Amino acid sequence: MAELTHFDARGRAHMVDVGDKPATKRRAVAEGAIAMQPATLELIRSGSHKKGDVLGIARIAAIMASKKTADLIPLCHPLPLTRVEVTFEPAENRIRCRATVETTAPTGVEMEALTAVQIGLLTIYDMCKAVDRGMTITDVRLLEKSGGRSGHWRRECANPESP
Amino acid sequence: MAELTHFDARGRAHMVDVGDKPATKRRAVAEGAIAMQPATLELIRSGSHKKGDVLGIARIAAIMASKKTADLIPLCHPLPLTRVEVTFEPAENRIRCRATVETTAPTGVEMEALTAVQIGLLTIYDMCKAVDRGMTITDVRLLEKSGGRSGHWRRECANPESP
Amino acid sequence: MAELTHFDARGRAHMVDVGDKPATKRRAVAEGAIAMQPATLELIRSGSHKKGDVLGIARIAAIMASKKTADLIPLCHPLPLTRVEVTFEPAENRIRCRATVETTAPTGVEMEALTAVQIGLLTIYDMCKAVDRGMTITDVRLLEKSGGRSGHWRRECANPESP
Amino acid sequence: MAELTHFDARGRAHMVDVGDKPATKRRAVAEGAIAMQPATLELIRSGSHKKGDVLGIARIAAIMASKKTADLIPLCHPLPLTRVEVTFEPAENRIRCRATVETTAPTGVEMEALTAVQIGLLTIYDMCKAVDRGMTITDVRLLEKSGGRSGHWRRECANPESP
Amino acid sequence: MAELTHFDARGRAHMVDVGDKPATKRRAVAEGAIAMQPATLELIRSGSHKKGDVLGIARIAAIMASKKTADLIPLCHPLPLTRVEVTFEPAENRIRCRATVETTAPTGVEMEALTAVQIGLLTIYDMCKAVDRGMTITDVRLLEKSGGRSGHWRRECANPESP
Amino acid sequence: MAELTHFDARGRAHMVDVGDKPATKRRAVAEGAIAMQPATLELIRSGSHKKGDVLGIARIAAIMASKKTADLIPLCHPLPLTRVEVTFEPAENRIRCRATVETTAPTGVEMEALTAVQIGLLTIYDMCKAVDRGMTITDVRLLEKSGGRSGHWRRECANPESP
Repeated sequence: MAELTHFDARGRAHMVDVGDKPATKRRAVAEGAIAMQPATLELIRSGSHKKGDVLGIARIAAIMASKKTADLIPLCHPLPLTRVEVTFEPAENRIRCRATVETTAPTGVEMEALTAVQIGLLTIYDMCKAVDRGMTITDVRLLEKSGGRSGHWRRECANPESP
Repeated sequence: MAELTHFDARGRAHMVDVGDKPATKRRAVAEGAIAMQPATLELIRSGSHKKGDVLGIARIAAIMASKKTADLIPLCHPLPLTRVEVTFEPAENRIRCRATVETTAPTGVEMEALTAVQIGLLTIYDMCKAVDRGMTITDVRLLEKSGGRSGHWRRECANPESP
Repeated sequence: MAELTHFDARGRAHMVDVGDKPATKRRAVAEGAIAMQPATLELIRSGSHKKGDVLGIARIAAIMASKKTADLIPLCHPLPLTRVEVTFEPAENRIRCRATVETTAPTGVEMEALTAVQIGLLTIYDMCKAVDRGMTITDVRLLEKSGGRSGHWRRECANPESP
Repeated sequence: MAELTHFDARGRAHMVDVGDKPATKRRAVAEGAIAMQPATLELIRSGSHKKGDVLGIARIAAIMASKKTADLIPLCHPLPLTRVEVTFEPAENRIRCRATVETTAPTGVEMEALTAVQIGLLTIYDMCKAVDRGMTITDVRLLEKSGGRSGHWRRECANPESP
Repeated sequence: MAELTHFDARGRAHMVDVGDKPATKRRAVAEGAIAMQPATLELIRSGSHKKGDVLGIARIAAIMASKKTADLIPLCHPLPLTRVEVTFEPAENRIRCRATVETTAPTGVEMEALTAVQIGLLTIYDMCKAVDRGMTITDVRLLEKSGGRSGHWRRECANPESP
Repeated sequence: MAELTHFDARGRAHMVDVGDKPATKRRAVAEGAIAMQPATLELIRSGSHKKGDVLGIARIAAIMASKKTADLIPLCHPLPLTRVEVTFEPAENRIRCRATVETTAPTGVEMEALTAVQIGLLTIYDMCKAVDRGMTITDVRLLEKSGGRSGHWRRECANPESP
């Protein structure tokens, strides 16, 4: 059976040794969404050019959070990110967030991309919670990763979790 | 129409003035889940007493993250948390995380509870991603809040997002 | 002659004891400016509604930095800020930044207001440095403080440093 | 007209992709000053060897702050600094601060040098504010940068902001 | 038998609920030492007034670290410190560090005092390691605490660990 | 006489220039111990599989702290750690902690290993202090380092500080 690499043979957690892996270009794309009432979505949309730029602020929070990943996730390696891009796309009753993160390092940036998405969506929640406390963050997942020994990975569309 | 309180009349973001609100006891409960393959869930379950305590580590990450909320969410007030409790409950193909946070302060701790859940679930992802890259974080939402002017709020079960 | 309160009788730095001072409402206002070429200012102005919201991002950076003050300034007390407001006002060849910070605490928030101004202006520098490396941050200073034993203080207009 | 590189074609902020730029040796020098009453300057000067070393503490704060730059400035890349040097030079009614920062990286360290100067000067303000609340931080700017595609840049003396 | 309060009845870690405890004045004193070669001690001593103020820098590091305690120790409550004082006292072949921390809060500041001592001594190690790699940090312990339900506690001199 | 490298010729602290040193593989091993009452040790031991995993939590705190070293120790360089391993070994009346840290960088990771040990032991203190306030952290020291110009260094057993 598969083993969890974050533990040694005796079950003790460690930061995995990546010292012998070459620094290669790594890329990860993650996404997620926050579901909300239509009126909330409308408020955010109109706000973008009139009342307060919720998505602009959430984007900054997402980018800054990606830089804190190793501080938040106990066994993550600190990595020198070379690119972070975050987009938001409003749909019917939700806003979808997508983050792309890149580095040149001996290990990947999946966690950085996921952290960006999580905090970006949380920031939307924070800014709109006074009008819609029931918003739900959902479908946060890795879409794609490349670089490193495990090569290119892409989420299959047939995934039952996918909307 | 409702207004977003994090912006002033001209649409500029600010940290809302809570200086005139009394410090009262506040409590928030949030939850979320991470969906995974049955084999991954089994690995985590067995690991808890044998190979490496994924959930114990995720709990610590969640508690520590709740203390960083004001550092992650741009317009959150820094708050002196008086209690943080995080539980994980494995179900069929997922692990559910629930966080309860309390403080005595002029504003609430919803964001702290949600941040704990998000980072707790992300830590599970990190520790298991080598065996199940497709895990999905889902249904992250506030369950309940109390304290403050807006009184007690509890999510209605009829919420369509709810499993 | 006046003494520096951050040192004890033997010249050793300490975090001053404020344990016997009552928690009262405190407020501080600070300002500063960044001087730039007219074309840079024009770029920022147009960007605010078209190409990228430099000032919106600088405002978020300023607010977040105010929460990190005790982490940056060695002898500052950590304080639970209850309000942070940051405004930018373009003038001829500069953008002026003003920050207002409030708390209810045994000591004041001058440093938090000044830190917000400094990091807000630095963020403008960062975002525009590719087109105008010579921008200069200037006239960063306290405008007003209130609350606490020393009462209300307001900068006199006759100050020779004032533009 | 020049474009702001921190925004994409649609005006969305991002952390600029530096993944294809080679890691080269980078150096930046920044300076700034804090203007004060002569008596305050005298207090600092005498303190350096007798009562409390204001400048020694400000130097440590400046060096530590340079390491936090990517945490403070939203779109800055995290960089492995290889050298930080901070000097203070008292003049008539001011103390001038100069910071030199170096790294080997795909992007430069101007922001790290400017952040060191800003926080160094703020720390002086903090330690002396009880005796001179009106101190003003001024003329914070880049003096010189080298390394990278844009080559060597040096501030011209004829700059009208220069004292 | 005694129970560990940081775990609930099922052995899960939590941040202990202190929400019902009154905020009272708390004080903790901790100490520790770093043993070194006589020549190293002499270097530090002379440096204090001539070559570089090792102890002055270690004091700042200690004070700043006390403010980061809740960020370092997983289950610590964030507390608004009202006083931090750190002293160093050279003896034969060691430097002794003592930290006093105070707050008004529902829980105590033992960890803050101990963290200050630990990081203060580590900073001495860092600054002198090039000349004396074998230095040893030792006897780090609580000396005294007061405030709160458990009242005044003072280490007995007969403690066998005590030098 | 030996010189302290963290100061320049005039006694001013700086972050030492390592820009011309090659990035080589570095490794450091540090250890330390916390002495406690036998009943406390028994509580921790039994807890590991029954009531609450003190050592598991201390290990996570130690690993996370190693990543914060440059944030805690003023003149440390930020380094991209490639491996962190922390073990605890209960002995008679104490628990011994050992940390191994590795990187590929122009300077070493002694401070990261020592910081991991210090915070790991402090976390044990925190979790057990309610039952044994007199615990003492002791014998924290470097055991071994390799990589870099100074080559391999190993603590000699004859060291009088060694138990």
